[in-house]
Amino acid sequence: MSEGIKIVTIGGGSSYTPELIEGFIKRIDELPVREIWLVDCEDGKEKLEIVGSLARRMVKKAGVPITIHTTLDRREALKDADFVTTQMRVGLLDARIKDERIPLSHGMFGQETNGAGGLFKALRTIPVMMEICKDIEELCPDAWLINFTNPAGIVTEAVNRYTNVKRVIGLCNVPFDMHMALAKIVDMPPEKVRITIAGLNHMSYVTGVYADGKDMTEYVLSKWGTQSVNNIKGTEWSNAFIRELGAVPSPYHRYYYMEKEYLEEAIEKYEENGTRAETVQKLESELFELYKDESLDVKPEQLEKRGGAYYSDAACNLISSIYNDKGDVQVVNTVNKGVVQELEYDEVAELSCMITKSGPVPIAVGKLPKHAKGLVQQIKSFEIAACEAAITGDYDKALAAMIINPLVASQRYSITVLDELLEAHKEYLPQFFKED
Amino acid sequence: MSEGIKIVTIGGGSSYTPELIEGFIKRIDELPVREIWLVDCEDGKEKLEIVGSLARRMVKKAGVPITIHTTLDRREALKDADFVTTQMRVGLLDARIKDERIPLSHGMFGQETNGAGGLFKALRTIPVMMEICKDIEELCPDAWLINFTNPAGIVTEAVNRYTNVKRVIGLCNVPFDMHMALAKIVDMPPEKVRITIAGLNHMSYVTGVYADGKDMTEYVLSKWGTQSVNNIKGTEWSNAFIRELGAVPSPYHRYYYMEKEYLEEAIEKYEENGTRAETVQKLESELFELYKDESLDVKPEQLEKRGGAYYSDAACNLISSIYNDKGDVQVVNTVNKGVVQELEYDEVAELSCMITKSGPVPIAVGKLPKHAKGLVQQIKSFEIAACEAAITGDYDKALAAMIINPLVASQRYSITVLDELLEAHKEYLPQFFKED
Amino acid sequence: MSEGIKIVTIGGGSSYTPELIEGFIKRIDELPVREIWLVDCEDGKEKLEIVGSLARRMVKKAGVPITIHTTLDRREALKDADFVTTQMRVGLLDARIKDERIPLSHGMFGQETNGAGGLFKALRTIPVMMEICKDIEELCPDAWLINFTNPAGIVTEAVNRYTNVKRVIGLCNVPFDMHMALAKIVDMPPEKVRITIAGLNHMSYVTGVYADGKDMTEYVLSKWGTQSVNNIKGTEWSNAFIRELGAVPSPYHRYYYMEKEYLEEAIEKYEENGTRAETVQKLESELFELYKDESLDVKPEQLEKRGGAYYSDAACNLISSIYNDKGDVQVVNTVNKGVVQELEYDEVAELSCMITKSGPVPIAVGKLPKHAKGLVQQIKSFEIAACEAAITGDYDKALAAMIINPLVASQRYSITVLDELLEAHKEYLPQFFKED
Amino acid sequence: MSEGIKIVTIGGGSSYTPELIEGFIKRIDELPVREIWLVDCEDGKEKLEIVGSLARRMVKKAGVPITIHTTLDRREALKDADFVTTQMRVGLLDARIKDERIPLSHGMFGQETNGAGGLFKALRTIPVMMEICKDIEELCPDAWLINFTNPAGIVTEAVNRYTNVKRVIGLCNVPFDMHMALAKIVDMPPEKVRITIAGLNHMSYVTGVYADGKDMTEYVLSKWGTQSVNNIKGTEWSNAFIRELGAVPSPYHRYYYMEKEYLEEAIEKYEENGTRAETVQKLESELFELYKDESLDVKPEQLEKRGGAYYSDAACNLISSIYNDKGDVQVVNTVNKGVVQELEYDEVAELSCMITKSGPVPIAVGKLPKHAKGLVQQIKSFEIAACEAAITGDYDKALAAMIINPLVASQRYSITVLDELLEAHKEYLPQFFKED
Repeated sequence: MSEGIKIVTIGGGSSYTPELIEGFIKRIDELPVREIWLVDCEDGKEKLEIVGSLARRMVKKAGVPITIHTTLDRREALKDADFVTTQMRVGLLDARIKDERIPLSHGMFGQETNGAGGLFKALRTIPVMMEICKDIEELCPDAWLINFTNPAGIVTEAVNRYTNVKRVIGLCNVPFDMHMALAKIVDMPPEKVRITIAGLNHMSYVTGVYADGKDMTEYVLSKWGTQSVNNIKGTEWSNAFIRELGAVPSPYHRYYYMEKEYLEEAIEKYEENGTRAETVQKLESELFELYKDESLDVKPEQLEKRGGAYYSDAACNLISSIYNDKGDVQVVNTVNKGVVQELEYDEVAELSCMITKSGPVPIAVGKLPKHAKGLVQQIKSFEIAACEAAITGDYDKALAAMIINPLVASQRYSITVLDELLEAHKEYLPQFFKED
Repeated sequence: MSEGIKIVTIGGGSSYTPELIEGFIKRIDELPVREIWLVDCEDGKEKLEIVGSLARRMVKKAGVPITIHTTLDRREALKDADFVTTQMRVGLLDARIKDERIPLSHGMFGQETNGAGGLFKALRTIPVMMEICKDIEELCPDAWLINFTNPAGIVTEAVNRYTNVKRVIGLCNVPFDMHMALAKIVDMPPEKVRITIAGLNHMSYVTGVYADGKDMTEYVLSKWGTQSVNNIKGTEWSNAFIRELGAVPSPYHRYYYMEKEYLEEAIEKYEENGTRAETVQKLESELFELYKDESLDVKPEQLEKRGGAYYSDAACNLISSIYNDKGDVQVVNTVNKGVVQELEYDEVAELSCMITKSGPVPIAVGKLPKHAKGLVQQIKSFEIAACEAAITGDYDKALAAMIINPLVASQRYSITVLDELLEAHKEYLPQFFKED
Repeated sequence: MSEGIKIVTIGGGSSYTPELIEGFIKRIDELPVREIWLVDCEDGKEKLEIVGSLARRMVKKAGVPITIHTTLDRREALKDADFVTTQMRVGLLDARIKDERIPLSHGMFGQETNGAGGLFKALRTIPVMMEICKDIEELCPDAWLINFTNPAGIVTEAVNRYTNVKRVIGLCNVPFDMHMALAKIVDMPPEKVRITIAGLNHMSYVTGVYADGKDMTEYVLSKWGTQSVNNIKGTEWSNAFIRELGAVPSPYHRYYYMEKEYLEEAIEKYEENGTRAETVQKLESELFELYKDESLDVKPEQLEKRGGAYYSDAACNLISSIYNDKGDVQVVNTVNKGVVQELEYDEVAELSCMITKSGPVPIAVGKLPKHAKGLVQQIKSFEIAACEAAITGDYDKALAAMIINPLVASQRYSITVLDELLEAHKEYLPQFFKED
Repeated sequence: MSEGIKIVTIGGGSSYTPELIEGFIKRIDELPVREIWLVDCEDGKEKLEIVGSLARRMVKKAGVPITIHTTLDRREALKDADFVTTQMRVGLLDARIKDERIPLSHGMFGQETNGAGGLFKALRTIPVMMEICKDIEELCPDAWLINFTNPAGIVTEAVNRYTNVKRVIGLCNVPFDMHMALAKIVDMPPEKVRITIAGLNHMSYVTGVYADGKDMTEYVLSKWGTQSVNNIKGTEWSNAFIRELGAVPSPYHRYYYMEKEYLEEAIEKYEENGTRAETVQKLESELFELYKDESLDVKPEQLEKRGGAYYSDAACNLISSIYNDKGDVQVVNTVNKGVVQELEYDEVAELSCMITKSGPVPIAVGKLPKHAKGLVQQIKSFEIAACEAAITGDYDKALAAMIINPLVASQRYSITVLDELLEAHKEYLPQFFKED
């Protein structure tokens, strides 16, 4: 890294990439990025070129000495990389449409990071990730792999479990959002507020909130959610429940603690407007139209509507803290090393870590609430079953993963939905269609 | 006990009582019962007298020296008892109708031992059980309390947690049924087959099957359920799932792993025929008509249709093994003492125990499957929340118990159903309607 | 086993063998032993023949249909065996003299089952045991291996860790002795007293005592040892310490909790009379003189002085309970399966088990006292280090095993004593003297 | 703290105090100390005045706006304190002489932080600490209590276990020394080296060493200690042992792993020169002679010979990191919160923590070596027994604490030495001499 940092972004043709480029530009003083390689696959070639051109214009406008490369040759890009970020979507948004539509059409949760949809995104992504890791081992063994690709927790678990790439970190912007929301509740600037988070990706709990050195956890628990159960309208948290729970759940917990109401709403929306993926697809087309504009040389405002706020901050802050050995606290997905006592020592958790030059070091996050422990373990066993199914292509393992998932909770529908999804994603699931 | 055993049966007016009487008659040689006290409350007086008379005729016919007493005065009965069995139903079958109807009417599981219905049965039963335990402490401190009242696991947890009665054992006939079914699969007489069971009441798993000293666990796992997933019709187990799970689940696990299909079926049945409780109510009336027949002096055949086969065998075998210090293995609900490693040391589990004069001694039952651990812990935290709500009458605790239950999984519906059930059962839930 | 049981005793030339023969004769009605094969090595040939002849005379006198075979060909004997008992002493008593003398001569504990001496007995025995296990796997894979050879806990751990023989049970008479002593304290016949024992071989604790169904644990703790500390004379237990400890320690715990006084005594005795092994050697010679007497056809009384009372009962009871699927409780060394929570799930413990046709099933034994937990774990890590050293022949591992043993507790003396013992036992430790 | 920090030092008359004063002077820019209160007891009055005067001269010379107060009135001093440091020695060095002499005279380890001596220092110190904590609760409930008084781990455990002062941190300079030594081995400046330490005070292990982001743990393990066992001379570590151990032990581990050689050496020294305490007493007299010199206005060089290098740095760095919310890593004694998996969640450990405004936050330290786990737990149970004995004044508890300590390991000598030490320290152990 002596002559500047080499970044490789796999899935570089994503509409999010300008966020990332902006993040590096803003931090150039503390984080001397020399070159950024945007890598994509044949199907993503056109988008890659559009995004690459915009990135070059952004860098030029900002006057920073970063070179932007675009390539379809992953191995060329990876050679001697310092940081590899992964944000690819195997099968593109068309696949996401199926992940949402097929379960929903059977009255089941359809979402790309949880339940049946989350399982299939994992099944498609993990084999590709295994290939990437083989290349990393060979071409840049000291690089840090920072994975955004969802389901981020499962993918990170798979890398840790099935490859020799130990410098892997899974990243999600949800903890970042929660930090912001909690800072608002205690009425302090975020940098004065320290929170401890423990659990799994999209299933983490805030176990502690400290504002300017003062323990505000009880205060936060007494304020989070609607005070009177009579006033609960739809999918807002009841404060009574939060207090009994004893920790602030992540927004994704609504799918579990409010499964019925969310499912009703999701089915209604789906019947009216189709899947969320289709909406996103439309938004993306519009964004790419903007990106093509040769006069655009900054990140366009419309990108923020796309969701994923703070994605860039999360990634760039993480990279900078590693590079600069900052020792600040960030929430990432990594092996918990006994700190989340409800998981096995070697299992990947999403938890608060001190970020150092040798990577994330988990910090004490307390105990998970008694009420939450079982759910977290159940999801972890789903995650591991998903990894095993993705690696082996074993139909039974995929079936078991679905049945034990509390958002599925059906043997018969698992069989139906599994069969339909396997067929729909056949092209991206060669491991399930091996000829013997 | 030197002059014969004194048995007290609370809820003695139950239609099941003749089963129990028959059980004691059959075992008189090894289990010298001297007197049986059938206790019931004012509302059950008539049934108590009918059942009591039948019991006296049965005893007379058999020519055994057992005296049958009937009384509404529990304290009179308990004095110096050796064994107290509890099989009362607070609020009678009318209450069960509500436990089933109200959740079902909101599209939610309605069953008397799981989910919202199970919670409410616990809320009504636990306070009565606390009173019984106070009497036991005072009047027969060395007696064994053998609890059949459902939800048996939760009620036993409450006794262990909130009273000084440590000689309490929760009993259920499901493990007995499983033993029979497993003996059939390995084609051996049941007494040659040893099984290890671990988990919670209505949530236990068979972790080992040994036939004539040979470990047949793998064999059983390969045979349990339907072999081809294509042949699964309704709510039978898929063998693929059983193999991946790595343990034989209890029949009640269907509510969790086949929640959707069972719920559909349950709602359909409910809309056609009303609740299961109403059917049972009709069966009971018919039974009591039979019992009234002065010429009847044996257990009538029709009782077997009522369900609960082996209830009498389970209870009488347990009592005999304690009395005779047999050291045989039976499955009961008791403090697990670290043997079920997935639970806390002091938590009540349903598990295989050696039955001795000093009570049940848990035996090694192996590990629960990874896939099952989280679910068991989640239900245990529901059970503990239910106990706390029953003891304190705290609305928020009852609400949290419902929300975290995977058969409820809804904050909004929890509020609705909780409010309706509280109102419906007001009479039997004074702890929730204290005036401050 | 349909035509009677085949027993193989390795180390059959031991002076203890007549005990075992007597045990089988006494139990012939419940335990139909058909043939007993006494196996020994070339060095033990003479003794083997003497003992074999006595055994034949005993069997004949008793009029039981047991055939006694003697052989140096272990593989011939093992073919289709039902039970294999091991009681061999690698290097004979001459080796034991060195195990005692060398440590004592450096002011260190010298004893054949603990400390440096115990380590070396393990180093010599384990490789031979590995060979025996290979033969068992091939020639009698369904046989039960019942190991008496000391250090019984370490040897059983090694078999479980490094072979495929899972039907292995380590046996020691100390728990049997403790049962007798406790029965005396509560003034009940032993068969009415149930005790729970947990820990390691020669390091176990009585955690519970139940007499005729009554929990007498507190009573026993209040009576064990000398009541007033002022009256403590030598190496008797102070009751104050026992009460604080909260469990009854095994007699071998004196080496740990009274290390200084025992060491003083041992060194004094050693300086006066030489090692205990030398005394035993003399006793043995005398015994074999007796055995040679052709008119002797019963176990001679003098054998009882040799120590090891109940050895025969322990072994024969265990074999009979397995054969007859008795389900009674005995204390053996076996994988603890999570029942001893202070050890790993797969580690061998000495603990109370229900003995069945499928082997020992650990029963709940409670928690070890806080004060004892650390010591037990330290000794377990010594045991595992000893196994690793025995298997690998790695000098450093043997050194570490010695240093971490609390009866050694010296780096410098460990080196000295290790070097002397390796040299002294060179012949029996080929794994440490491999040429590269 | 808005107008500057108020520090209270209990045992302010210690010869170490100039170290501390110098530390605060050096850090005045980041740590705005306004007033320092040196508190001592009647017996220490003269020393307090000598040290107080020197402190005032030092402050004046440095030109910093710190006011120095000296007082015998602890409560006056504590009012609104921000940080309270404790470094008192109950019974002064005369008591230490007895702690060393009495055990040594019976051939037992005599040292003020381990074994019998450590126990008695705890028994004298804890009751005084309880009084201090009562005052803190009342007079400065938000203050941080930073305890140096040995045995620092036990005293911190007692404060955490028996008082409401939760803002307590135990501090020792040994981890600081180890950090320095490890930095030298990896040839890096200490600030580039991160180490993880876990265990107990005077019984901690280095589980990880990271130099400039690189994991150097294996490298360090291969270099620590003497390479060839043949070259081991006295009490240096053998590298073979360190590698097998798998962690770098603290220097105090020599007392356990080299007990015999240290004891020989200690007895020899004691017979030649008397106790270490007597040597220290002489050094102290010389120091106080120097301190009296009115022309002295800086910390005299001779203080460094007294031992305890880095004490001041450890304390001042800790206070500054709390005050400035630095989030850097320091090794302190605090509740481990599940991070040291070998201890209970609520037990005090010595371990690496991130130091924040809300106190120390333990960071992941890995697992302790298998070989070390048992020893650490044994010492922790000794620590807890010591706390209980100190609080209750129960003879039996003190006796048990001694017997289970591996540096004592004798029941008989425990009784003798316990009786002599109780008599010798009678004046400072009122809890053991209550009249009933």
